[in-house]
Amino acid sequence: MSFQVFGIPVSRGVAIGRAVLVASSRVDVAHYFIAPDQVEAEIQRAVRARDEVAHELTALRDDLPEDAPHELAALLDVHLMLLHDEALTGATKQWIVDRHYNAEWALSAQLEVLARQFDEMEDEYLRERKADLEQVVERILGALAREQGKAPVDASSVVQRDFAGEDPLLLVAADIAPADMMQFKRSVFHGFITDIGGKTSHTAIVARSMDIPAVVGTREASRLIRQDDWVIIDGDLGAVIVNPSPIVLEEYRFRQRQSELERARLARLRHTPAVTLDGERVELQANIELPADAAAAVDAGATGVGLFRSEFLFMNRNGELPSEDEQFEAYRAAVEAMKGMPVTIRTVDIGADKPLDRMSASELRHEHVLNPAMGLRAIRWSLAEPSMFRQQLRAIYRASAYGKLRLLIPMVAHLSEIRQVSETLKRVQQQLTDAGQAFTPVELGVMIEIPAAAVMLPLLLPHVDFISIGTNDLIQYTLAIDRADEAVAHLYDPWHPAVLQLIASSIGQARAAGKSVSVCGEMAGDPAFTDLLLAMGLRNFSMHPSQIPSVKQRVLRADASRLAEALPQLLESPDPQRTAALLLTSKRGNTPMQ
Amino acid sequence: MSFQVFGIPVSRGVAIGRAVLVASSRVDVAHYFIAPDQVEAEIQRAVRARDEVAHELTALRDDLPEDAPHELAALLDVHLMLLHDEALTGATKQWIVDRHYNAEWALSAQLEVLARQFDEMEDEYLRERKADLEQVVERILGALAREQGKAPVDASSVVQRDFAGEDPLLLVAADIAPADMMQFKRSVFHGFITDIGGKTSHTAIVARSMDIPAVVGTREASRLIRQDDWVIIDGDLGAVIVNPSPIVLEEYRFRQRQSELERARLARLRHTPAVTLDGERVELQANIELPADAAAAVDAGATGVGLFRSEFLFMNRNGELPSEDEQFEAYRAAVEAMKGMPVTIRTVDIGADKPLDRMSASELRHEHVLNPAMGLRAIRWSLAEPSMFRQQLRAIYRASAYGKLRLLIPMVAHLSEIRQVSETLKRVQQQLTDAGQAFTPVELGVMIEIPAAAVMLPLLLPHVDFISIGTNDLIQYTLAIDRADEAVAHLYDPWHPAVLQLIASSIGQARAAGKSVSVCGEMAGDPAFTDLLLAMGLRNFSMHPSQIPSVKQRVLRADASRLAEALPQLLESPDPQRTAALLLTSKRGNTPMQ
Repeated sequence: MSFQVFGIPVSRGVAIGRAVLVASSRVDVAHYFIAPDQVEAEIQRAVRARDEVAHELTALRDDLPEDAPHELAALLDVHLMLLHDEALTGATKQWIVDRHYNAEWALSAQLEVLARQFDEMEDEYLRERKADLEQVVERILGALAREQGKAPVDASSVVQRDFAGEDPLLLVAADIAPADMMQFKRSVFHGFITDIGGKTSHTAIVARSMDIPAVVGTREASRLIRQDDWVIIDGDLGAVIVNPSPIVLEEYRFRQRQSELERARLARLRHTPAVTLDGERVELQANIELPADAAAAVDAGATGVGLFRSEFLFMNRNGELPSEDEQFEAYRAAVEAMKGMPVTIRTVDIGADKPLDRMSASELRHEHVLNPAMGLRAIRWSLAEPSMFRQQLRAIYRASAYGKLRLLIPMVAHLSEIRQVSETLKRVQQQLTDAGQAFTPVELGVMIEIPAAAVMLPLLLPHVDFISIGTNDLIQYTLAIDRADEAVAHLYDPWHPAVLQLIASSIGQARAAGKSVSVCGEMAGDPAFTDLLLAMGLRNFSMHPSQIPSVKQRVLRADASRLAEALPQLLESPDPQRTAALLLTSKRGNTPMQ
Repeated sequence: MSFQVFGIPVSRGVAIGRAVLVASSRVDVAHYFIAPDQVEAEIQRAVRARDEVAHELTALRDDLPEDAPHELAALLDVHLMLLHDEALTGATKQWIVDRHYNAEWALSAQLEVLARQFDEMEDEYLRERKADLEQVVERILGALAREQGKAPVDASSVVQRDFAGEDPLLLVAADIAPADMMQFKRSVFHGFITDIGGKTSHTAIVARSMDIPAVVGTREASRLIRQDDWVIIDGDLGAVIVNPSPIVLEEYRFRQRQSELERARLARLRHTPAVTLDGERVELQANIELPADAAAAVDAGATGVGLFRSEFLFMNRNGELPSEDEQFEAYRAAVEAMKGMPVTIRTVDIGADKPLDRMSASELRHEHVLNPAMGLRAIRWSLAEPSMFRQQLRAIYRASAYGKLRLLIPMVAHLSEIRQVSETLKRVQQQLTDAGQAFTPVELGVMIEIPAAAVMLPLLLPHVDFISIGTNDLIQYTLAIDRADEAVAHLYDPWHPAVLQLIASSIGQARAAGKSVSVCGEMAGDPAFTDLLLAMGLRNFSMHPSQIPSVKQRVLRADASRLAEALPQLLESPDPQRTAALLLTSKRGNTPMQ
């Protein structure tokens, strides 16, 4: 049966493929594809884990004291029975064979299938057995985790592996944890559909940066869509069409071909320098997450890395920290790949309680952290874990011997934080000197992403070499809007007068103080804001490599000095978006470059 | 055994009394004291709920289908057995008799006692029966809630009732939900101790406003302290002394007497007008939560109500909204009690999903709202529930016929929100006119508590009659610090340069535009900030009635024009607290009034 679900369109384009459901209840379980030659080994992992649990449960039952209530033994029997039920074990195996899911994913996918069956039962007593099933699956997942702990998977091999399936796959989930997104971003998915999230949820950001269509905030897609359903994602309209008719399908295939042509056209701009009509040179740099992304940055014509999000080196490691040497190798690989162009490494921008393990939204939501966005994150967390922080700084400094490195501190709100960082840097430099390790001077910058930092910028500037404006967080905190909360997502507004005021004053104050300033948030990569940022005096944009061509096209068509003239009027407007539409478009040059 | 626990001192003074533990696991259960003559009736409530559950479970067991797994029947038997266990039912009754706890509280207090016993058991199988016990208690609580739903308690009678015990009681809890705090604030507790929270958590704010000692963020007090332990709270040091020695006890009793003398001294200022040395008249108004608070406001010498937190009318009502008439009566009672002085009613400042019921931290933390502080709250929620909002506005307008009312909108961040409010007001006025209801003009004001509102204030001012600065939230969002999160509580800083900048510019811009401006956050009631706010030009402070005398003493000793001279230097300082200590104290008059 064909039907449609609507949500928030967060990444443009059309995707057509088969639905892959990721169980919402197991959002904190690792999801990745195994290599075809690992299928048998993965099945054995699942079997070993089950056997271990069976052994545990049998031992528990046999050791029951004489006077233990008899229903305990009965309950253990039920669990043992479920453990060997073909509906669980056989089907789990099938997910591994057919889809190359890892054992945890296979198990939770099957739990989801069975849980739905339980939910649909008329009989209340049987319905309640779902809890038993969940407990059994929890135990198996626990056993798998313990085994994983002994021999951690090689994250890079997992991340980069492609799935050898035939049809394109679209991911459907209640929500996607950032750590899972890391796994998925290099894998096979051609589109994302989630129940929750807003325009700037993690899923949305990653989808846009990958240039893959996505619709979020559908509220119920993951309940309505079944495994393997044929699905069209219309990332322009925010529509998800399930089991489409042949006519609809043909129309969307036509649109897909059109956008491929447009992409090819933009790709020809790759090696054109980004210079405005009036001759202003603009740096278009890349945001990357792993050293391997540097190649794509160079390919896309980036003139440097404006943001290396180092926290991704810390994810999907089963709670283990990357060693100083591992980090050093990663930073060196990135700086070498950029061939003399600058690489800006941001220290870890994660936090809360279990950030090193599989950092998922559900984990962040632990007992006491009610508002993780305003909690122990980023530099706050680094300063609270000084030995981890020094390790990262040493690795960055050591890599500075191999190219041009810059150091960027996230979430600064207090002068005391910069002071503590500077003291730590001095100590790290001394340690390296004592150890005879080579390093070169590294510029120190701070992210301007908390309102306090923007408001007190004149007090901060004397202590740093550069600033980078993180528009996503800056907007979020300035408006007190959680961008991932669909109930208020409509109020998250980059065109808000206060937001523009803070961004413009930050750019202006940094330039006046002779410090370099870039924008690395979403606004930098969105061509709708290119003219605005140029008007504010910005000459350094950092974005996902895939966004560079379209932003470059806007730069090539812009007249920076004429745009700047419109700025004061724009900043005084109660409706800047409308004012910008009137003023900025007319301030662009009249002779497009191509 | 005597021992000490340390935490964050959030409300000064000494309290000595017996520990009353509120079970952390049941934070979402109503806690209140019943009247002595209600003891028997409350026991009967508990018995009826238990009998209802017993009936349910028996029916379930008897109706089991022939082929149902036998362990289901066994499990139901276990639950039935627990339900009639004297350790649960007898002890629950005892809590009601001895302590006048309501049935829910008694039940969860006893669950906590039993759960600890289970936790301490060596035997794993028995330990696991805790879950069964919890399920049974859940069922009884469910039955009690259903009964409550039929005949809601009269919240005001519960709130105001005093407990007839002998020893002073100190509340010890992992956390205290705002709704519970409402119950406790007028009851018998002489001090609060919580495991979590920071200087500006709800518990801290309420404790300070009640002038009752409190220590929060102790991490483990609720696990270490036992019911009925003798405890000293040292609210200056942040120490909690459990089972103190006689010498220590005597020392603290001496300090208690000293602070009572100081309080009596301040009380004599009650009817002195608040005028600075250089003749500037200052309004010291009251923050209140219920109409009955107005009496205390008048008593304390308040010159009006600067903040009536209307959301408290919506709490503890088992999910039912107060009717328009009920609200009207409450607002009218407040305005009449203030005898012609102005009363500023803030529309509901709560939100998320189940705000009308028992709004607890644990409920706010529902499935998708990761950061409730940045979610659907306050005016966002009111605009999303237009009929509820219109009802509140009609009630406020109707009360305007009985005195001087002002309307205050919380959490405004967008011009569009003010526009929507204005449109709603027009519609409401028309409705009242059509119905022949009397009303007088009501001034419209907005809370300045989101950075965006402070930054774009010049654009907002033309649309409002007055503003009120909510410093707590303003600081929280400006610094991106959740004030209730103890991991970052040390970074929450009212002296932060960006915070002072935003407050000073808001006060200055409002005055320049000829609009009245007040501060109703914590800073207004803290004498440490009185000079600073006077220097910024503030002439209207709103605070808990109990704080008025000490703030008034500061006003009487201040020279406003000399303080104002120091302001520019203060706002440029990277360390304003230090600069203030140097500048402001010397700018005060040299001839204290008393």
